Amino acid sequence: MTTVDSINRKFMKPRAANHVPLSPLSFIKRTAAVYGNKPATTYNGKTRTWSEVYTRCCLFASAIKKSGVERGEVITVLAFNTPEMVELQFAVAMAGCVLNTINTRLDTDTIAGIIAHAEPAVIVVDAELTAQLELALTEINTSEKQLIVIPCPDHEVSRHQFPKEVLYDDFLESGDPDDSWSLPESEWEAYGLNYTSGTGGTPKGVVIHHRGAYLMALGTVPAWGVPQHPVYLYTVPMFHCNGWGHAWLNALVAGSIICIKKISAKIIFDAISKYRVTHFGGAPVVLGLLINAPEIDQKTFEHSVQVMTAGAPPPPAVLEKVEQLGMEVMQVYGLTETFGHIMHCAWDTEWNNLDFVEQATIKARQGVQFTHTEETEVLGLADNQPVPHDGKTQGEIVVRSNTLMKGYHKDEAATEAVFEGGKFFRTGDIAVRHPDGYIEIKDRLKDVIISGGENISSVEVENVLYRLPGVECAAVIAKPSEKWGEVPVAVIELKTDTEYSETDILDHCRRSLAGFKTPKEVIFREIPKTATGKVQKFVLRQELNP
Amino acid sequence: MTTVDSINRKFMKPRAANHVPLSPLSFIKRTAAVYGNKPATTYNGKTRTWSEVYTRCCLFASAIKKSGVERGEVITVLAFNTPEMVELQFAVAMAGCVLNTINTRLDTDTIAGIIAHAEPAVIVVDAELTAQLELALTEINTSEKQLIVIPCPDHEVSRHQFPKEVLYDDFLESGDPDDSWSLPESEWEAYGLNYTSGTGGTPKGVVIHHRGAYLMALGTVPAWGVPQHPVYLYTVPMFHCNGWGHAWLNALVAGSIICIKKISAKIIFDAISKYRVTHFGGAPVVLGLLINAPEIDQKTFEHSVQVMTAGAPPPPAVLEKVEQLGMEVMQVYGLTETFGHIMHCAWDTEWNNLDFVEQATIKARQGVQFTHTEETEVLGLADNQPVPHDGKTQGEIVVRSNTLMKGYHKDEAATEAVFEGGKFFRTGDIAVRHPDGYIEIKDRLKDVIISGGENISSVEVENVLYRLPGVECAAVIAKPSEKWGEVPVAVIELKTDTEYSETDILDHCRRSLAGFKTPKEVIFREIPKTATGKVQKFVLRQELNP
Repeated sequence: MTTVDSINRKFMKPRAANHVPLSPLSFIKRTAAVYGNKPATTYNGKTRTWSEVYTRCCLFASAIKKSGVERGEVITVLAFNTPEMVELQFAVAMAGCVLNTINTRLDTDTIAGIIAHAEPAVIVVDAELTAQLELALTEINTSEKQLIVIPCPDHEVSRHQFPKEVLYDDFLESGDPDDSWSLPESEWEAYGLNYTSGTGGTPKGVVIHHRGAYLMALGTVPAWGVPQHPVYLYTVPMFHCNGWGHAWLNALVAGSIICIKKISAKIIFDAISKYRVTHFGGAPVVLGLLINAPEIDQKTFEHSVQVMTAGAPPPPAVLEKVEQLGMEVMQVYGLTETFGHIMHCAWDTEWNNLDFVEQATIKARQGVQFTHTEETEVLGLADNQPVPHDGKTQGEIVVRSNTLMKGYHKDEAATEAVFEGGKFFRTGDIAVRHPDGYIEIKDRLKDVIISGGENISSVEVENVLYRLPGVECAAVIAKPSEKWGEVPVAVIELKTDTEYSETDILDHCRRSLAGFKTPKEVIFREIPKTATGKVQKFVLRQELNP
Repeated sequence: MTTVDSINRKFMKPRAANHVPLSPLSFIKRTAAVYGNKPATTYNGKTRTWSEVYTRCCLFASAIKKSGVERGEVITVLAFNTPEMVELQFAVAMAGCVLNTINTRLDTDTIAGIIAHAEPAVIVVDAELTAQLELALTEINTSEKQLIVIPCPDHEVSRHQFPKEVLYDDFLESGDPDDSWSLPESEWEAYGLNYTSGTGGTPKGVVIHHRGAYLMALGTVPAWGVPQHPVYLYTVPMFHCNGWGHAWLNALVAGSIICIKKISAKIIFDAISKYRVTHFGGAPVVLGLLINAPEIDQKTFEHSVQVMTAGAPPPPAVLEKVEQLGMEVMQVYGLTETFGHIMHCAWDTEWNNLDFVEQATIKARQGVQFTHTEETEVLGLADNQPVPHDGKTQGEIVVRSNTLMKGYHKDEAATEAVFEGGKFFRTGDIAVRHPDGYIEIKDRLKDVIISGGENISSVEVENVLYRLPGVECAAVIAKPSEKWGEVPVAVIELKTDTEYSETDILDHCRRSLAGFKTPKEVIFREIPKTATGKVQKFVLRQELNP
């Protein structure tokens, strides 16, 4: 039998003309050419156009090459959301290198561990963080690294702190304006090396690829309804999942990126108002910041403000208050391993007729697969088969997507463990499917509490706790019990000037929860969180069950 | 030196979980799952949802497999824009087969030639076209083909005309509802076989691939600003470049496709009004139909209607009148070889302040590369180097894009000729670049007239002719001249009840054109066109310069 492909095989191979490696670098190149005069980054009153930003990226790539760094080597970045960070989301890959951004809020030991593991050829660091970086580098005896320092008005840059130190803009000047850059030979080449935030303990080095980065940005356009030329406020730290890929997204649609280095409710409200921000993203902790801000700092808006939230299921009460400020919230779900969002709570216009509480309940769901996600399924914990769409049966979310990492850097065993045969990626998140197919996360696999043979979703209990207005943060974890195996314990951080007794809390829980789900103990204390605001239950468990 | 990719090479190969072949089939699968209850196709008062359409596609694919057709074989379709045609844009590929749609307006000889060349395993045909198909099949002695007939109320289906004939819905019933389908092993596999429309003579079989089809649809979303759930009127024939990929696009954004079998101004106006159509596409000839319709048939709209136009540079006068009807026009440019549009006249909001004539002049430009197009360049005819951005220097448009064909079916020589070394695809279209980088087509390479050593753009002369209100269609071609080499001749089709003399025409031209560009002769006659409304200058040349 002759098929079209077999007849033509000899001359229909992919060529440079018809098979271009997918890469977000193509977006910035195109936008610099087509929308070169449109604003790209704005920070501290200074705006650069896409043409200017592109030129600076090219200079950085050229300077890197001239400095002797080879394609495929790692460049580590320890910096805030300044315009340089936007540039680095492209410039490092333009040099053929692998971008490794590190969470600025990590402790010195962890930073040192990541740098030792990533083995960067060069480190870019905000002047405000040079002291911390020095401690980390000393710890691993690597003070000879080439450092590129992003200046900071409040922190004088010492040029003698490190033997090899150069200011970011001086480094750009060492680049050749006539130099050119090239796409990777294969779209499967590494684009970034992102260490996980550490809800599960030791950070793992997630290697992402050009192909996924391209599809992440492009797939976000239909799913979030992103128009041409949005005004985007960069509240999501770019050291986290490449800031959810939104720098690439803005390059794609020629958006105007408003950079802010530090986050506060006042700064966010003022920026939205001043620049007529149309889009921003933030973990629920950022949304909480906004709704809990003093009234004098709060603003409401007449223009449409779209908010993408992720990182933890936002309590319905938070969603409700944010929308009262005039913002439309879309919850998304993803992991560092999936480049960020791979599911979203796609809104059905028929739900517009529901009352607010019903709407908020739906919006708390993680929803359905993104445009670029091939498959999201919930597999039963016992039988590994898709769970019924009953809103009750729990299983683990598994994913198939072109926006899935290549694997964990230098860790074949961990990689094989999460890919389990290669067909799916196991997220470790426990969820149910509702009758309409929407997925709702119930817990992290390792956070499920098993009491007397019953599964207790710690998130369900936490949601009940959050209904108490004085609760700032709540975490429910397992405590060993001779009788039940495990029992739930509530750890609670109260708002300032709030007082609850253990009895207040337990009475409140009993009104909403089955007896076995009601916490057996309440501990009032500060709750450890990751830099992105996620509760670190493994730390709590270690501290409380030593 | 160790790089991230070299360290991890052993275990970071692509897997089923993280490397899914790009294919528009993923769009319809997702939309059936997420937006299964949303309308997909509407025709003659009957609406099917995306879930229903998807099920019918699956049944078709299953029935094809059960009938013994193998993956990679061709399925030819000779049909109009009915819902079945929408289904076939997916169903054929779901069976692993290659979709070959044939222009219904072609003559029997050409249809026979295409079928003989494509060698389909099965043919799907509209009942209205069975007689024509029979003639074609008789010509090439292949009456034993399996035929699947799309019924048509006005044409009784004879069940005896062909030995192997089955109605479309009966064929679906032979499919197994429990059967599954699979994506291609490689996204580079053939998706379709589209014969060119024939402006250049013999049709060539353009082989398109899954990867390009996916990117075509996804890349159109930002470039055309397509929202979720558009209402799309399918005026572009789906036998032409897969209807510009808009069936895939609608599957991606869960659009509502309004099907119409025959086109008239009244049908289009009525459909836009009845269904509140938000998007449609059409060659300038369709736009001409609308603006020249009797006033009683015309309607204006309060809701936004986006029109994508392509196929020929629309005269500014046509653009102006269409916008007066309340429609926003975006011109795009592409070829069958490029899956349809690869450039578009991206609008800069700063142009909103220009007057209408200036705006229309810009909108007549083909513009800039689409989101999914890697590079569009204009290379000088003599030096093969990028032309200056002066709006004057002419060159040939060359393209690099993931939406470029694999090649011409069974024609290695023609394939190598257009890829010329593999780096670019040569379009054969002559254009200039304006100072802002926007590209404007001046002519087909083979339509340029060279008179006394000067290049004359036939399109430029035609645009002058179109300014005469009585000119329905104009074509300017070369006539051999002993003195000048070639001289321009104007062929003109007048509107009914219009009369111009040769002198009227030439006087008008002299007022706007240099002497050497002014036609030396005017011929009044009907002008031959392709099925998509493009003037067939090669036919005129053959007839007038035998």
